[in-house]
Amino acid sequence: VNAEPRPAAVRKADTLAKLRDPAADVWVASAGTGDAGDPVPWLVPLSLAWLDERVVLALETSSRTARNVVAGGGARLALGHTRDVVMIDAVLEDAVPLAGAPTPLAEGYAAQADWDPRDAGDGYTFLVLRPERIQAWRESDELAGRTLMRGGTWLV
Amino acid sequence: VNAEPRPAAVRKADTLAKLRDPAADVWVASAGTGDAGDPVPWLVPLSLAWLDERVVLALETSSRTARNVVAGGGARLALGHTRDVVMIDAVLEDAVPLAGAPTPLAEGYAAQADWDPRDAGDGYTFLVLRPERIQAWRESDELAGRTLMRGGTWLV
Repeated sequence: VNAEPRPAAVRKADTLAKLRDPAADVWVASAGTGDAGDPVPWLVPLSLAWLDERVVLALETSSRTARNVVAGGGARLALGHTRDVVMIDAVLEDAVPLAGAPTPLAEGYAAQADWDPRDAGDGYTFLVLRPERIQAWRESDELAGRTLMRGGTWLV
Repeated sequence: VNAEPRPAAVRKADTLAKLRDPAADVWVASAGTGDAGDPVPWLVPLSLAWLDERVVLALETSSRTARNVVAGGGARLALGHTRDVVMIDAVLEDAVPLAGAPTPLAEGYAAQADWDPRDAGDGYTFLVLRPERIQAWRESDELAGRTLMRGGTWLV
């Protein structure tokens, strides 16, 4: 049962609600390099915080996702479920080891996520990702008009 | 509110139920190569069919996901939501253009998915992906024991 396609302003509001949702999770796709120099995909679910228009992740510094994103400089993120998606292409703005993290970053992350990496011991890093493109759609009738941000600028 | 961690047999049954679910979707992470030879992640939601222990996708031959998977030979898939996930590392067994697809493949796909690529015109391809590793977990208490298949063989 499809409703009418949502106008852009509604899609933006829905997108921001997903990004600000307490204990929100995000699918994080990254890519690394195999032994033969071939590109290798990786994908994990992680908790996020939405701080100053940035997606902030906290993860083990040695994790495959952290290594991929730091080396490659970006990630592709998905929020929501497969028929109500927000897709975000993001570039790495900063990688901040937990020990050196500014208080607002660590407090902000802990306030939205349902865990606090400061309780998890050393070896964690915050990745601060700046969205370059954001798209939101539910079903095929919403593919038109799905782009809400392009080149880091909201279109709506 | 967490239940007890599920035993392996229950996780396998839950996983197969997700794979066999009518109109099931899957997150498909693939990786391509950028202009500088750098690995570039890609991620999209797609409908799947579970046929003969293979994940079958139908998508535009020219799509970025199809090109990445055909070139790279594999994908990483996620079913379910972020706190009840099935992660599948899969290798490409076959890429079958729609026009040459055997009837059981095309019928099988259409029977489970909620669309039929044969109605979508030319330019579509079935990707037949063989799971190499399958993991299933809900929350952190289920990280132990999450591997249900390794090296293409069910462990349970």
